[in-house]
Amino acid sequence: MADHNTITATVETTLKTLLENRKYASIKDILTTMNPADIAGIFDELDEQQLPMLFRLLPKDLGADTFVEMDPDNQQLLIQSFSDTELKAVLNELYVDDAVDLVEEMPANVVRRILAQAAPDMRRDINQILRYPEDSAGSVMTTEYVWLRTRMTVGEAIKHIRETGVDKETIYTCYVTENRKLMGLVSIKDLLLAKDDNTKVSDIMETNFISVNTHTDQEEVAQMFSKYNFLAIPVVDSEGRMVGIITVDDALDVLEEETTEDIEIMAGMTPSDKTYLRSNPLDLFAHRIPWLMLLMISATFTGLIITGFESALSQMVVLTAFIPMLMDTGGNSGSQSSVTVIRALSLGEIEFEDLPKVILKEIATAILCGATLAIVCFGKIMLVDCLLLHNPEVTVNVALVVCVTMAMTVIVAKTIGCSLPILAKRLGFDPAVMASPFITTIVDALSLLIYFSITKAVLF
Amino acid sequence: MADHNTITATVETTLKTLLENRKYASIKDILTTMNPADIAGIFDELDEQQLPMLFRLLPKDLGADTFVEMDPDNQQLLIQSFSDTELKAVLNELYVDDAVDLVEEMPANVVRRILAQAAPDMRRDINQILRYPEDSAGSVMTTEYVWLRTRMTVGEAIKHIRETGVDKETIYTCYVTENRKLMGLVSIKDLLLAKDDNTKVSDIMETNFISVNTHTDQEEVAQMFSKYNFLAIPVVDSEGRMVGIITVDDALDVLEEETTEDIEIMAGMTPSDKTYLRSNPLDLFAHRIPWLMLLMISATFTGLIITGFESALSQMVVLTAFIPMLMDTGGNSGSQSSVTVIRALSLGEIEFEDLPKVILKEIATAILCGATLAIVCFGKIMLVDCLLLHNPEVTVNVALVVCVTMAMTVIVAKTIGCSLPILAKRLGFDPAVMASPFITTIVDALSLLIYFSITKAVLF
Repeated sequence: MADHNTITATVETTLKTLLENRKYASIKDILTTMNPADIAGIFDELDEQQLPMLFRLLPKDLGADTFVEMDPDNQQLLIQSFSDTELKAVLNELYVDDAVDLVEEMPANVVRRILAQAAPDMRRDINQILRYPEDSAGSVMTTEYVWLRTRMTVGEAIKHIRETGVDKETIYTCYVTENRKLMGLVSIKDLLLAKDDNTKVSDIMETNFISVNTHTDQEEVAQMFSKYNFLAIPVVDSEGRMVGIITVDDALDVLEEETTEDIEIMAGMTPSDKTYLRSNPLDLFAHRIPWLMLLMISATFTGLIITGFESALSQMVVLTAFIPMLMDTGGNSGSQSSVTVIRALSLGEIEFEDLPKVILKEIATAILCGATLAIVCFGKIMLVDCLLLHNPEVTVNVALVVCVTMAMTVIVAKTIGCSLPILAKRLGFDPAVMASPFITTIVDALSLLIYFSITKAVLF
Repeated sequence: MADHNTITATVETTLKTLLENRKYASIKDILTTMNPADIAGIFDELDEQQLPMLFRLLPKDLGADTFVEMDPDNQQLLIQSFSDTELKAVLNELYVDDAVDLVEEMPANVVRRILAQAAPDMRRDINQILRYPEDSAGSVMTTEYVWLRTRMTVGEAIKHIRETGVDKETIYTCYVTENRKLMGLVSIKDLLLAKDDNTKVSDIMETNFISVNTHTDQEEVAQMFSKYNFLAIPVVDSEGRMVGIITVDDALDVLEEETTEDIEIMAGMTPSDKTYLRSNPLDLFAHRIPWLMLLMISATFTGLIITGFESALSQMVVLTAFIPMLMDTGGNSGSQSSVTVIRALSLGEIEFEDLPKVILKEIATAILCGATLAIVCFGKIMLVDCLLLHNPEVTVNVALVVCVTMAMTVIVAKTIGCSLPILAKRLGFDPAVMASPFITTIVDALSLLIYFSITKAVLF
């Protein structure tokens, strides 16, 4: 059986041929069998004239679902080609959280048109959600959930869901509220599997539920989904009133976004909202130059350390040849530790209290790594530089200095690499900042200091 | 309102006090109000004597849910303390996919006991799932799903779900099969919201559904969840017969696991299945030393390049002082590009076909970054080294050589950094290997070659 991606690629080729031959009826037939995300993928590659035309071929609900999955640039292009009636129709089909995402991406004049055409309660909900801080639970929630009352019976609850569920983002978890206070949760599974239709909702609802506050950080919320296997989580305001829900699909998006952000920061870039292909070189430049600049300037210190040792280096230039190897091994050892710890911190596996345990573990690992590397390095120097290349400057003493430096650098690098992220988190900074580029810069300077101190002691 | 984590921490302290005072009845009352993941968190910190005793306080279903969330070491400890009857009871409450995870983590003698106590059809399902390759869709699926028949009416379908749903991992998507072939999907939402109970399931089922094969890579499956917002996806075998489903909570776990693996590889480590706190220094050593060794040995080349240029360096030792800055800036620039591209590849944003577009974008960015860095670096050298430190060796020519090298290194680093991951993926390797440590080693050698070539041309 061919896999789904191959099938999508084949359909894409067929559609392009049909489009060239203007077979719109067949295109419509094919599109209506497809998944919105796949249609959006194809639409995002169309040119400006074709897009609005093809979009109009889609049935109303499929159109709205596809619209949500498209690139913001193309969403804007479509909105600008819509009549007010068309825009109103698409907006009517959107869930509030998707409408909020749209409003956040569009320029001001398009936003004004969207808000003018949105139904009054959607407009009110959009405005409410927009007021929550960026990256908070409130800003990613949706207000369309199924509510029940404690005094309802299971039969009444199921009837209520069948009457009102069609516009809700999920009907699988229902929220039992009284005076807007959240009293309990009941899943549709519990309702359906209840033995008796006359059972009261209050008898089967889960009252020990977990909820988040509108101001809870979205990453923390997303981590709760993977910890507790939720499909949705209720969001309450500071007075405990239920204001919305966050569904697992949004949690997945948040996790993906936050992970990308972590990875970008770890590689010395300020995080970007735009996908790579949508970023132009100026965007990329703006996100990359600050760290490059900062790290370049801090490399002044390594320069100064070398300058301070200039006279010894000019007597034994062979010492210079080992600098890159020592610096790189130190940098690599340090970033292994820092990246491991940063990931464990972001998965909630370790806390500040674990710092001593982490440091001990890293020092033990560093001794093992450092000793192994030093021994292999000694063998390599004696074999390659002495025996093969007959470099008279490379003596046993030089090899020993290099190898002891190597071992010490690895130990220092791993200790610093594991502690800085934990300390950064404790001080309220993002631990991801303490990854390779930052650690490398510090370890470079330290490895040179170690190298030159040992050299001075042993060789001069 | 206090947030959930604070509440859990308070409960933990209370439980510890109750445990010291042996107030088991109160402990039981508190535990039964808690979420399995939180109970598991507390249990994982108990000592060996307390764990089995407290576990026995839990009601059967909560016990099983808690058991699933615990560390493998403690699961093993519990199983060893269980009687056969207790083990059978816990296994009976597990979903097949959780039972498979358990079997995969346990040593052989424990596995034999588990399989002996499992119900016959669970044992058959476990053995079947274990036969699928590691990291395949088949290996993470569960066999407990709700099936319907095309000729059923909506009313009959709902009745069938109410009768059989209790043992299924999800009842929210139902799978319509005939002769084990998957004919369509129908969500419980569609069933409940259907206008008429006599509507045939075949009339409302979705026949254009997406399924995966038992051999599809688990990461690909997980990405489909975030692309299509599924709650579950059906798994079919090579003859198109339905064999199981994968649910969104497992997809979340897979995504988290695969991301951790990517991050580990990007930092030059071979990926590990164990969490950080469960890894001992020997584990960490084993996962870290291969790359450190390889990279240390490849640094021989940078050493050789420097040795080849020894005579010039001994005449102008000041040139050595700029080596760390040039190497680090090159390494940082290269890893920015490689990491960005690796992440875009793993999110499916770019493909091999995008290579020329990516290279052009990176070169444009590199020219902007390189020029800016070169200008700032020139200013810094003239200001700090010439004016402040009065270093007579640092002439305008030296500054020019350093800055031109800097700009060229950034361009080379970014071009290599963006292309290698795409090429690696094309050749069937994991692109994550082409991250910082690897790129740094290549860029180090190239930056030295550029530096010394320009130096030779301009200064000697």
